[in-house]
Amino acid sequence: MPETTLRAEQPDSRTTGTWIPGRRIIRFGGDYNPEQWPRETWDEDIRLMKDAGVNLVSIGIFSWALIEPEENIFDFSFLDEIIDLLHTAGIDVDLATPTAAPPAWFYRKYPHSRAVTRAGTPLAFGSRGIVSPSSPEYRAASRRIAMQLARRYGSHPAVVLWHVHNEYGTPVAESYDEASVAAFRFWLQRRYGTLDRLNDAWGTNFWGQRYGQWAEVDAPRESGTASNPAHRLDFARFSSDALLECYRIERDAIREHAPQPITTNFMAITCPSVDLWQWANEVDIIANDHYLIAERPKNHLDVSRSGDLCRSLAGGKPWILMEHSTSAVNWQPRNIAKQPGEMRRNSLAHAARGADAVMFFQIRAGQKGAEKFHSALIPQAGEGSKKWREAVELGAEIASLDALVGSRVHARVAIAWDWVSFWAQDLDWRPSVDLDHRERIEEFYATLWRRGVTVDFVHPAADLSGYDVLFAPSLYLVDDDAAANIRAFVANGGTFAASYFSGIVSTNDDVPFGPYPGQLRDVLGLVIEEFLPLRAHETVTLSDGRTGRVWSDDITPSSAEVVVRYSDGPAAGAPAITRNQHGAGSAWYLSTALDGADLDLFVTGVLDSAGVSYAPPSDVETVLRTTDDLAFAIQINHGTHDDGAGLVGHDLLTGSPVTATDAVPAGGVRVVEISGTA
Amino acid sequence: MPETTLRAEQPDSRTTGTWIPGRRIIRFGGDYNPEQWPRETWDEDIRLMKDAGVNLVSIGIFSWALIEPEENIFDFSFLDEIIDLLHTAGIDVDLATPTAAPPAWFYRKYPHSRAVTRAGTPLAFGSRGIVSPSSPEYRAASRRIAMQLARRYGSHPAVVLWHVHNEYGTPVAESYDEASVAAFRFWLQRRYGTLDRLNDAWGTNFWGQRYGQWAEVDAPRESGTASNPAHRLDFARFSSDALLECYRIERDAIREHAPQPITTNFMAITCPSVDLWQWANEVDIIANDHYLIAERPKNHLDVSRSGDLCRSLAGGKPWILMEHSTSAVNWQPRNIAKQPGEMRRNSLAHAARGADAVMFFQIRAGQKGAEKFHSALIPQAGEGSKKWREAVELGAEIASLDALVGSRVHARVAIAWDWVSFWAQDLDWRPSVDLDHRERIEEFYATLWRRGVTVDFVHPAADLSGYDVLFAPSLYLVDDDAAANIRAFVANGGTFAASYFSGIVSTNDDVPFGPYPGQLRDVLGLVIEEFLPLRAHETVTLSDGRTGRVWSDDITPSSAEVVVRYSDGPAAGAPAITRNQHGAGSAWYLSTALDGADLDLFVTGVLDSAGVSYAPPSDVETVLRTTDDLAFAIQINHGTHDDGAGLVGHDLLTGSPVTATDAVPAGGVRVVEISGTA
Amino acid sequence: MPETTLRAEQPDSRTTGTWIPGRRIIRFGGDYNPEQWPRETWDEDIRLMKDAGVNLVSIGIFSWALIEPEENIFDFSFLDEIIDLLHTAGIDVDLATPTAAPPAWFYRKYPHSRAVTRAGTPLAFGSRGIVSPSSPEYRAASRRIAMQLARRYGSHPAVVLWHVHNEYGTPVAESYDEASVAAFRFWLQRRYGTLDRLNDAWGTNFWGQRYGQWAEVDAPRESGTASNPAHRLDFARFSSDALLECYRIERDAIREHAPQPITTNFMAITCPSVDLWQWANEVDIIANDHYLIAERPKNHLDVSRSGDLCRSLAGGKPWILMEHSTSAVNWQPRNIAKQPGEMRRNSLAHAARGADAVMFFQIRAGQKGAEKFHSALIPQAGEGSKKWREAVELGAEIASLDALVGSRVHARVAIAWDWVSFWAQDLDWRPSVDLDHRERIEEFYATLWRRGVTVDFVHPAADLSGYDVLFAPSLYLVDDDAAANIRAFVANGGTFAASYFSGIVSTNDDVPFGPYPGQLRDVLGLVIEEFLPLRAHETVTLSDGRTGRVWSDDITPSSAEVVVRYSDGPAAGAPAITRNQHGAGSAWYLSTALDGADLDLFVTGVLDSAGVSYAPPSDVETVLRTTDDLAFAIQINHGTHDDGAGLVGHDLLTGSPVTATDAVPAGGVRVVEISGTA
Repeated sequence: MPETTLRAEQPDSRTTGTWIPGRRIIRFGGDYNPEQWPRETWDEDIRLMKDAGVNLVSIGIFSWALIEPEENIFDFSFLDEIIDLLHTAGIDVDLATPTAAPPAWFYRKYPHSRAVTRAGTPLAFGSRGIVSPSSPEYRAASRRIAMQLARRYGSHPAVVLWHVHNEYGTPVAESYDEASVAAFRFWLQRRYGTLDRLNDAWGTNFWGQRYGQWAEVDAPRESGTASNPAHRLDFARFSSDALLECYRIERDAIREHAPQPITTNFMAITCPSVDLWQWANEVDIIANDHYLIAERPKNHLDVSRSGDLCRSLAGGKPWILMEHSTSAVNWQPRNIAKQPGEMRRNSLAHAARGADAVMFFQIRAGQKGAEKFHSALIPQAGEGSKKWREAVELGAEIASLDALVGSRVHARVAIAWDWVSFWAQDLDWRPSVDLDHRERIEEFYATLWRRGVTVDFVHPAADLSGYDVLFAPSLYLVDDDAAANIRAFVANGGTFAASYFSGIVSTNDDVPFGPYPGQLRDVLGLVIEEFLPLRAHETVTLSDGRTGRVWSDDITPSSAEVVVRYSDGPAAGAPAITRNQHGAGSAWYLSTALDGADLDLFVTGVLDSAGVSYAPPSDVETVLRTTDDLAFAIQINHGTHDDGAGLVGHDLLTGSPVTATDAVPAGGVRVVEISGTA
Repeated sequence: MPETTLRAEQPDSRTTGTWIPGRRIIRFGGDYNPEQWPRETWDEDIRLMKDAGVNLVSIGIFSWALIEPEENIFDFSFLDEIIDLLHTAGIDVDLATPTAAPPAWFYRKYPHSRAVTRAGTPLAFGSRGIVSPSSPEYRAASRRIAMQLARRYGSHPAVVLWHVHNEYGTPVAESYDEASVAAFRFWLQRRYGTLDRLNDAWGTNFWGQRYGQWAEVDAPRESGTASNPAHRLDFARFSSDALLECYRIERDAIREHAPQPITTNFMAITCPSVDLWQWANEVDIIANDHYLIAERPKNHLDVSRSGDLCRSLAGGKPWILMEHSTSAVNWQPRNIAKQPGEMRRNSLAHAARGADAVMFFQIRAGQKGAEKFHSALIPQAGEGSKKWREAVELGAEIASLDALVGSRVHARVAIAWDWVSFWAQDLDWRPSVDLDHRERIEEFYATLWRRGVTVDFVHPAADLSGYDVLFAPSLYLVDDDAAANIRAFVANGGTFAASYFSGIVSTNDDVPFGPYPGQLRDVLGLVIEEFLPLRAHETVTLSDGRTGRVWSDDITPSSAEVVVRYSDGPAAGAPAITRNQHGAGSAWYLSTALDGADLDLFVTGVLDSAGVSYAPPSDVETVLRTTDDLAFAIQINHGTHDDGAGLVGHDLLTGSPVTATDAVPAGGVRVVEISGTA
Repeated sequence: MPETTLRAEQPDSRTTGTWIPGRRIIRFGGDYNPEQWPRETWDEDIRLMKDAGVNLVSIGIFSWALIEPEENIFDFSFLDEIIDLLHTAGIDVDLATPTAAPPAWFYRKYPHSRAVTRAGTPLAFGSRGIVSPSSPEYRAASRRIAMQLARRYGSHPAVVLWHVHNEYGTPVAESYDEASVAAFRFWLQRRYGTLDRLNDAWGTNFWGQRYGQWAEVDAPRESGTASNPAHRLDFARFSSDALLECYRIERDAIREHAPQPITTNFMAITCPSVDLWQWANEVDIIANDHYLIAERPKNHLDVSRSGDLCRSLAGGKPWILMEHSTSAVNWQPRNIAKQPGEMRRNSLAHAARGADAVMFFQIRAGQKGAEKFHSALIPQAGEGSKKWREAVELGAEIASLDALVGSRVHARVAIAWDWVSFWAQDLDWRPSVDLDHRERIEEFYATLWRRGVTVDFVHPAADLSGYDVLFAPSLYLVDDDAAANIRAFVANGGTFAASYFSGIVSTNDDVPFGPYPGQLRDVLGLVIEEFLPLRAHETVTLSDGRTGRVWSDDITPSSAEVVVRYSDGPAAGAPAITRNQHGAGSAWYLSTALDGADLDLFVTGVLDSAGVSYAPPSDVETVLRTTDDLAFAIQINHGTHDDGAGLVGHDLLTGSPVTATDAVPAGGVRVVEISGTA
């Protein structure tokens, strides 16, 4: 077909009701790497996939050395055969570019293309993820292989999706090789124009770091002590952008020859190194990998949080769970197996948060290499095993959920999420090592989850008009746009609730002139005379008996009212929680780390003040997915007793009616097409 | 003498009754480094050695720079003098090649001969052990100095033994220098023949690691994430072989000119990096260094275990304790001094386990350098000190034990010990960081020790015909030969008892097709559907009340009977311990970590089932050394009250008779030539 | 003025009564780095400084890139303006050379001038402190900029002091670059003359490390295991000397053109890497930076200790507190803010210990760069803040203390302090990792502090004639001069009290022949047969019930009497504390770590035996500063209740009379010009 028409043919929800083209079904499947096994295994694999209801597999992720065994010599026989086999079996293909793992010949020919650590060690071949994203040779080779694949398979009927690379940003996000340094300088020149502006932005007059020539600007390698934070922050930005540029190069090469949607698999809550708000605009559909940290208590909260973040990145549109695990992974200290029912709950929780595809790494467990102890759809124990039977049952259940396709989740409450702020806060020499944006976000999230409040995550400079409440747990960096955005949100009637160490710096980790928090002083109606971080394990008591950890501030309200004060600690007598009327809205400030019921009291107070309803605390996760006509409640009982009654309708999983007194059994799941509530 | 006759003259037990040539005595002495002191000290040293009954010293270990002060310029005056002095004093010489410490000039001339760390740092001169074992210049220089020494001293009457190098594998075993990479490629070419076979063995299709040219294969340097485990395992094998090749080069150079037996001092239970089963075949007599980890409780168990392993390496023949310490060492976090009597108990425990030589590092304590705080036979405090008096007393006692020379220890029970399996299990990304073959072997060993059961250690593919029982505590890697060997052992009536994570992988860290444990499924009569490792500090209860740690499995017996089940935990209700009849024998499987009395119950159950007797638990170590005619019981009371009565005979140490009611005093030792038992 | 007369004009106490030239006042101020702010801020800064009574600021510390923007191109406009502004405001200038932070162009032109870590990584530009002190290019550039500054400002009336560099030895003290290696070899050649002498001093015959050519001697880089300790110790000495040589180069360049006193700011108790006894002779006045470790309990003891050490370095003369903090620093794990009154107590405690200047880092808090969260005289919160008001009040109080200028503190008790011994003791492979000279010195110091005993610190080979008692807590290295000095001190009637692990080695970490402690055997009247270090967390009981930690010895007294014995532990029954009459004096030995009241009993026993008086334990710090005519008692109450009554006079801070029953309020300070005592 003529290339000029390709873009117009990108499938989207306008034409198919789903962002994954083809059949209007929930996708089920996973990564398939058949090159690890002899040819005879493939037929058994496909038979088993069909038994399990697999309808989509990702292939080719690590196949570069097979497809291009020598530079510019291509051999597609492996892919030809496996794609045809899958197509014949009715299984669609998510075709990957293999660019996460350049072949051995590539590094032999271009040894300087290897990533280099901050300490100066070039990473060696033999694991994966060791290429410099700024290597011109890598970019050229990536473009070439992507184009070759698109040319050959762009019109293959099995191929419904393109999967560029794999988990950008892991295992290595920043490279200190020479090509990266050159690219970083170029990036800085575009950002700042003149060296004077860079010197000013980075504050190089401090510690005598002023640059006189562009050639003096290096990557922020290991130095004698703490490096310039603005330098490091810009290098983090640059590194995310360099990876995104790699993605764009491949995507554009594919787009010239193939009409299917193109994506790459994020690690949204796991990989800290890429600013996915930038990336979300560049993919045709959000895809994500999520793995439980097995030993975390209540790690199902991480599933929900991952799903909510993916949906937020997708702007509310459906997304693909590209990888999760059937049971244990292989890279954690203790790779705890999933309990019976846990894989099912995890899978349906992703669906609840908006995923229209539930996929696994990987179809068959490996026998060799670094990940052979990773669980798979087809485990080492084979089709006689309980795990396999659970997989088959899950596949059947997924197939019963096609009515969910294209339905949406809506939220009135948002939590601020900004990778750039995370990067800045995680640099050296902050007021306390106990400052931890991740922990705070998780605790706020958990509080809302237990109250049944579905949240979106949102960049602080993004459109907030759809939300009643914005929580900002430790949002350290707030640039001028974000500050103005938050100010306008509150002025227009929104409710904003920040916790400590928020709004402290602007774009370049620079403290605005005047008292903290310079970026939020006005909206919060207070100044902080001094940070009063607590000692290790120190706690403080609030005047209403609550207990704070980690932090306190010496607050002087300007216009804010004092809600609660400190009874003891370094801020004894001073405000602990304040609330400020700002325009038509209000802004809360919480200056210490509250947990559990103490934080619940704060959060529900904020929700009450905003008129947002919430439920009694519960272990039953209930999420609504709606279309213009229909409402589905996915209910997952993570607790140990039956709970969650109150809905009327029928359960898509069983086909049975649901009455108002029917509870969700402990450990169970139901997907209720709602016809009423109790 | 003509070189062609040299080999025929190697002394061995057939001609002398001892593997150390010369006098039929237990050897007593140690490392002697007189070059550290002015000449006048030497005479005092020799006077003191004679006072203590020293009859063998190792010299020259670090003397390269004195003997060859410039390349190819030799000066033997120092050695000539000290060897003659010793000979005159009637003290035999164990003459070392100094190749563990090439001189400064060597590194100046051949800087690329330095070992390089996995991260790429070349190790610097100034400590020791920094040479690359694959350096051609090092190998040539080693051969030359060994040959020079053999030529000069091969017929010196004082020289009774050759001591090649020092503690191969420590402090550095793996080097990532260019010569090592070249040698590794050559080693791989010999092992695999073709690159296709290497690619298959290593599973390089996983993560896109396929090699297209030999030149692409590097040492497994630090990479972005976990390196290919088969790659690392082969590099560990290669590194052990490279060191062994260095040994062989020197040995062969000596052998051309000298008739005495040749050995090198192992660190059998301490150094994890060399496969001593390979090495044992290449030395004329096993020699070993053992140092207590002072702060370990019951570290006398490590003495016994070290001795049993040395005897096993020696195929039951006597061996040399080449180094241990009179008291504190200098390199541990807290270098705790030995208590009164502890040096004696340690020394005689080694003898109990088959040592016919008890030697120390070192004769005189140093005043300079890195090891001046290491204890010595002649301590800093000199001949007025209690420690010196203890040394003299020990020397006299050792001299009373000559009747032991050449007697043997026999064991009916063996524990599997395979360095290659250890290497494999210690690689990255195992199912649990709590998997620990070393801890498990120690716990099984301690259980048998407390029961008075003397054990051999045995490679799982070695001849098992002499044993009734084989324990395999966490024997992760079992290659096809070993699997067949174990299968045959059980089929022929042996009793095999494996604990968890055994038989999981074969030669190349590859999981055999089908359920775990692929290499032992048949002999154990079960399949493991899934590993169920436990959380940190989690315990599980067995149906008979015992407590497990670390691990459980989801076991489905095929032919095995269930002995005990889990009462709780992730495997609740499933088998915890099984026993399978296989041919004429039986195979036990223990799927969790038991300790103390809980493990004792398992171990004694296995022994009972095999008809192997054992004693009540005791702190008295009793080991039998026998000849065709005589039986000696060495008894060491590690407890705090008198115990161990029941033997009749006389005590070689005191010459006194031993009656059936005579106990071994707390902290005491006796060596009973047995004429009866109670 | 003619250069030849410059030296004669150096101001000193003979002419001005103060070591800081100019006005006879206590100096108050801090580091001022106006280049971080736009020009308009400077006027506000100066207004605020005047409000606070600032009379001295340090400028130019990090201004190299502004002053010499390209090599050999100078632009003094920034300095000209700010110095004139300050002068007009009546604020004196401490003018710094900017050589702690060479500009970016310097590293671009001379990349090999970067410091290199022990592991071989060159440190990168972007923080500070990354230059090799042995770089010839650096030394030339430093000399040039220092000379340029001296030429231009040597006669400026505002400039009263020169501040060379910044905190020599931090963040990096040892560099392993090639220029350092060359300089180290030269340093060794001067120290040893011949390689034979070096080989002997270092004991290179151990471990075969003998050098045959100077070119073989490298810096002691990371090696296979513990490096030669004498090698490392000499490299530490060399590194301190190399930095001192850098200082001398700049000082001499300044002296050619400027008459003011010249100094550099030490970090006396913080930076372990420079031997300040050597440095003290080279500066015209001691200057010091001290920062609280905020989370340490009783960290006011560190203030006192720092002050006593600075006064000792100054030979009793007044010194400058060049930097401390108004509140939190920014580089600790938790940067705890100072409590109300704490800045005042800290400041006056330094003055109590002899400081005639109280200065801060920095005048205004930064908005950019690595230290923006460091507190400052003008905080982020500005002049409306409580912290600013406290600063203004402190400035006024300081201004009331001019009568103190030039007065002196006198001590009868000294504690041995020798950086070289610290370096030696901190090397690898000591008998116990719990050996900790720093902890022991602190505990002895704290005991004396609580008893109101003011101490000097003293090098063990320095003049001891002014002292009654010398404590040596863990003084590991005692060279022959120091041993003779201590011996003479005791023989002449002094009281010496050493704790364990003292006098063990001489100059080159070499153990003298014979029993420990070779350097102190005679004066202590005992020999140690063997060290008996304790296990982790093990304690031992003394016969009088006291509890020891860390250590015990197997002591055999020769002439010493036994004061207390061990009741249990490895030395049970042996002496724990001894006392030896030696000539007219006596020498105590304490062989274990005592704490709190147990150590107090030892220390007061020693003081009693020497006839030195002490007070009941108290939290009130009382220090006397006296002139020929006057006595001032600075009293600081660190406790929580009023205490410290007994003085009669008047309080310089308030101008009010002090009567014998007036206590110092909890948390309060007074400076009493004494007219009598209760």
